[in-house]
Amino acid sequence: MPLHDERGRFNGSDPMTPEVRNLFSAPLPKGEGEIFQKLLEGRDFRLESIASRGKPSPEGFWYDQPDPEWVILFAGSSCLAFGTGETLELKVGDYLLIPSHLRHRVESVSEDALWLALHFRES
Amino acid sequence: MPLHDERGRFNGSDPMTPEVRNLFSAPLPKGEGEIFQKLLEGRDFRLESIASRGKPSPEGFWYDQPDPEWVILFAGSSCLAFGTGETLELKVGDYLLIPSHLRHRVESVSEDALWLALHFRES
Repeated sequence: MPLHDERGRFNGSDPMTPEVRNLFSAPLPKGEGEIFQKLLEGRDFRLESIASRGKPSPEGFWYDQPDPEWVILFAGSSCLAFGTGETLELKVGDYLLIPSHLRHRVESVSEDALWLALHFRES
Repeated sequence: MPLHDERGRFNGSDPMTPEVRNLFSAPLPKGEGEIFQKLLEGRDFRLESIASRGKPSPEGFWYDQPDPEWVILFAGSSCLAFGTGETLELKVGDYLLIPSHLRHRVESVSEDALWLALHFRES
């Protein structure tokens, strides 16, 4: 029985040693395209992992998000394109803050690319 | 001039391509002990990187935090001890949620250990 739910609230009275999971060992369902997995959720944020599986954004598709997103590349490599007309080549450990409504897309991405993304509401 | 401050708020009107930083390239000041660096802050959370530099928690020291902390090991290895009497061996990609007031300490840690830690207020 977990001590806390996914928002970190206590479910019990006795502290227990936390459960450890690994970012690389999440099962990847069959099929194509990115896999999003929610890791943690708070009042004003949502932390998720993204396994890209080599799939760039569909032709002509742009993310245009109402909230800012902080993202870090945990494994692999990728190239992101932005509505500004610029592109960014990313390697492991690279992180950036994508402001709300800045259009962006995954131009190319390696098979093993794994991201952490923190979506949050602006203060 | 950055488009947004560290809370993701817009400072300007024209979107710009985000600045990319790398988790491994933060300058480590001389001296010993852990280096904490704030990466992002929201209303109810604070995201930071921790470079352990091989230094375990001081003898007899326990973290006892009022808020929960989600943590992931980005590089290196470590052993965490908990107030429950248990220990956890961590490798790259391992993540866990440390509930508020669960006492914990870094029992041992590799020179190259690098963490991401998300501190947040319980809903």
